Amino acid sequence: MSSELPAMSPERPAMSTEPFSVGLLGFGTVGSAFATLLQQRAAHIERLTGRLPVLGGTLTTTEGSFPEILDSSDLIVELIGGIEPAREYVLGALGAGKHVVTANKQLLSQHGEELFDAARARGAQLRFEAAVAGVVPVIRVLTESLAGAHVERVHGIVNGTTNFILSEMTRGSSYEQALAEAQRQGFAEADPSEDVSGRDAAAKMAILARLAFGTPVHLDQVPYEGIEHLQTDDLQYARELGLGLKLIGTAERRDGGLSVRVHPAFLYSGHPLASVNGPFNAVTVESDAITEITMSGPGAGGRQTASAVLGDLVSAMLSPVAPSPPLDPLPLVQDVASGFYIHMEVADRPGALASIAQVLGEQGASIKSVAQHGLGEHARLVMVIHPLAESRLREALKRIAALDFLRSTPRAIRVIEEEFM
Amino acid sequence: MSSELPAMSPERPAMSTEPFSVGLLGFGTVGSAFATLLQQRAAHIERLTGRLPVLGGTLTTTEGSFPEILDSSDLIVELIGGIEPAREYVLGALGAGKHVVTANKQLLSQHGEELFDAARARGAQLRFEAAVAGVVPVIRVLTESLAGAHVERVHGIVNGTTNFILSEMTRGSSYEQALAEAQRQGFAEADPSEDVSGRDAAAKMAILARLAFGTPVHLDQVPYEGIEHLQTDDLQYARELGLGLKLIGTAERRDGGLSVRVHPAFLYSGHPLASVNGPFNAVTVESDAITEITMSGPGAGGRQTASAVLGDLVSAMLSPVAPSPPLDPLPLVQDVASGFYIHMEVADRPGALASIAQVLGEQGASIKSVAQHGLGEHARLVMVIHPLAESRLREALKRIAALDFLRSTPRAIRVIEEEFM
Repeated sequence: MSSELPAMSPERPAMSTEPFSVGLLGFGTVGSAFATLLQQRAAHIERLTGRLPVLGGTLTTTEGSFPEILDSSDLIVELIGGIEPAREYVLGALGAGKHVVTANKQLLSQHGEELFDAARARGAQLRFEAAVAGVVPVIRVLTESLAGAHVERVHGIVNGTTNFILSEMTRGSSYEQALAEAQRQGFAEADPSEDVSGRDAAAKMAILARLAFGTPVHLDQVPYEGIEHLQTDDLQYARELGLGLKLIGTAERRDGGLSVRVHPAFLYSGHPLASVNGPFNAVTVESDAITEITMSGPGAGGRQTASAVLGDLVSAMLSPVAPSPPLDPLPLVQDVASGFYIHMEVADRPGALASIAQVLGEQGASIKSVAQHGLGEHARLVMVIHPLAESRLREALKRIAALDFLRSTPRAIRVIEEEFM
Repeated sequence: MSSELPAMSPERPAMSTEPFSVGLLGFGTVGSAFATLLQQRAAHIERLTGRLPVLGGTLTTTEGSFPEILDSSDLIVELIGGIEPAREYVLGALGAGKHVVTANKQLLSQHGEELFDAARARGAQLRFEAAVAGVVPVIRVLTESLAGAHVERVHGIVNGTTNFILSEMTRGSSYEQALAEAQRQGFAEADPSEDVSGRDAAAKMAILARLAFGTPVHLDQVPYEGIEHLQTDDLQYARELGLGLKLIGTAERRDGGLSVRVHPAFLYSGHPLASVNGPFNAVTVESDAITEITMSGPGAGGRQTASAVLGDLVSAMLSPVAPSPPLDPLPLVQDVASGFYIHMEVADRPGALASIAQVLGEQGASIKSVAQHGLGEHARLVMVIHPLAESRLREALKRIAALDFLRSTPRAIRVIEEEFM
C-alpha cells in the first residue's frame, strides 16, 4: 500500500491545505465498502490529485442530516438506491453545483434527463460508472472513448445473478436448484424477482442506450423477459446445436430507429459474450469504425462497486492532463518465476525420465504433468512444471542438454496458470 | 450519419463562432483514415462539444510547415511514428501549450517522461489511447477508471500480428505458412521483425506498466522473446494438456518490485485471454478491489486506430460533465426480427414436421436447422429459424399450438448470430 511507503516523490505537486470533502449518502454493503476503500487509498489519491479526500459526513437511515452534509461537502456520493429520497438529494446536490457520483440504476433509468439537465445547468459533474456492469468501465468508454463514434449496437450481459444461474443450468441444474445455489453463494437476493425477471437488466440497458445513441430511454420503454421459464433441456438441446444461453440486453439501430430490449438468447460459440460464465458482466459495443470492443469483469459485489465509485471520485477530482509524475516508482525485477512447458527428445531408454526429473529437482522444480510419445528409437517427453525462477530453469535446461541420451536441444515455454477467481 | 439529419436539437448548446483547429502530422494509413473519419463526424462532434473540429493543416513528407501548422492549431495529432522528428514536434506543441494526441508507441516507450513533464509544465493534455491495443480503451481505463486502484497485474495480448500467426499455427500451419498468410491478409508487414520479435509488444507493455504502476519503464528495460522459434508440434502437445499458446505481455508486482516482460506463454483454457484468437488485442487488469477486468477488440487497422485518435480528440475538446442533451434522438422500435430456437413436443406421426414447416413458411420463417428426438409416442422437435419479426413469430406459435398433434405449448428463445468480423 502506498500509504506505508515513506518516501515522497521529489516531483510531488504542491498540496492544497484544504482536504476534499466527500459526503456519503447510504451506508449499506456498497457504502461501507466505499468508506473502507477511500480510507485505504486516500494518501495515493492525494498524491494524484493534490488534495486529500476525506469523508465529510455520512447519512444513514438513522444518522446524519442531508443539508449539513451537503453544505460541508465538495462532492456527494449517493449509494442509497431507489427513487426517493435519492432523487431529491441528487437534485439538491447538483442544484448546489456539487459534483455527484452515484451507483443508482433505478434513478438514472427513470429520471436520467432531469438529473442530466440539473448537472448541465450548474456545470456540475454527474458520474455513474457503478450503475451498470460494476467495475466494467462501459459508462466511461461510451461517454468518452466513443463520444465521437457512430455506434451500431450494444449487447450486454449486465446481470451477474442470472448469468450465474444460466451457467449452473448449462451444467445440468434445474432453474430452482441453480437459484438456490446463487442465493447460497450470495449472488442472488432472498427475493430475486428484480434480477430473474430481467427488470434490473432493462434499467441498465436504458442507461446504456441513452449514452450510446443520445436518445432518452425510460425503463418503462424497455420490454424485458426473464429467465424463470427456461428449461434445463433447452440448454442441453442448444448445446448440440453449438449454442449457449445468456440473458442478453440489446440496444441497436433498427429500421431507422432504436430497439432496446432484454431477453434470454442463444449465442453461437464464437460470439464474444458466449464465453462469459458465472457471476460476470460483459458488454460488446459495435460500430463501423471500431468493429467491436468487448469489456468484461465481475458484476456486482460491494467492493467491486465501491471501486467503480472510487474511480469516478478520482476522475471528478482530477483534470486529466498527462500521467502524474512517478509516484512510489518500483524497482524493476528481472528473474521472475513462471510455470514452464519443456519439450525434449530423448533416446528411448530406461532411466531417462528419472535422470531428467533429478536435474529438475536439484534446481527446485516440481513437475506438474508429463506426457511421453514414442518416436521410433526416440521418445518425445513433454513436461509442465510449477513456477520456477528463470535463472534456475536456464541452469536446469543446460544440465539436461548435457545428458548423453538427449537427442535435441530442450525447448521451454512459459505457462500462465489461472491465478484469480 | 448525423450530418445528414436536418433537425437541430432544441437544446443545442450555443456555438462558438470559432472552429477547433486540428493540425495533423503524418498522412499515411492512419493519418488519412483519421482525416476521413474527422470529416464524417465533425458535425456530431460540434454538437457534443460546441465547436466544429476542422483540419487546420497537414504535414506530409513533402508538404506543410510544422511552425505554421502549430501556430494555427488548437491541438496537434501526431501520426508520423518513430522518434525523430515526431519527438521534436510533440515537445514543440506541448511547449506551446497545445494539446497533443498521438499513436506513437516508440516515442512514448522511449521518451515518455520527457513528454509527460512537458505536458504538465504547460497544463497541456497528452493523450495516446491509439498507441496501445488500437481501439481497446486500456489507456483511458488505467489512467482514469483505475487511477485510484492498487493494480496487481496487467496481462496483455498487445500485438495482433503475432496473435493471428499463433492462431493459424494452432490449426496446424507451420510458422512460415502462418506468417505468409498474415502478410497476404495485410496483418503483417513485409519486414515483420518488429512484431514477431516481441519488440512491438514490449514497447506497449512499457507504456502500460508506467500507467498501471506509476513507474517509468523504458523499452530497453523490457526483456522480450518472440515467436519465431515456436514449433507447430508444441501447440499440438499443449492442446492435449488443455493449454493455448499466446504472445503475452506481463507487468506485475513481484518481490517488492515490478516485472515487465514479453514472451510466448501457454494459458489454461479458463484464462480470459485464452479465447482471444485472430488479429485481436486484449488486456486483463487485476487488482484486489476489482478482481479483474478484461477488454478486447481488433488490434490495429487504420480505421480502428483513427477511431481511437478521434476519441482522444473529443475528450480533449470536452470537459465531461453530464451526458450532452439528446442529439438526434431515435424513435423506439418494438417489433424487431430475431433468429429463434423453437422447442415443440409432438405426437410421433408422419407429416407433423411438414405441417409445422408450412405454418412457419406462411409467416415468412426460414428454417435453419432441425433436430428430432424420439420420446416414446412423442417426439421432441427443436428448430432454429432465421431472423423473423416478433409479431410473426407469435402468430406462428399460436397456429402451431393449435395443431392437433401438438403435445405441449411450443417454447421459443431468441438466437443471436455472429454478425461481425
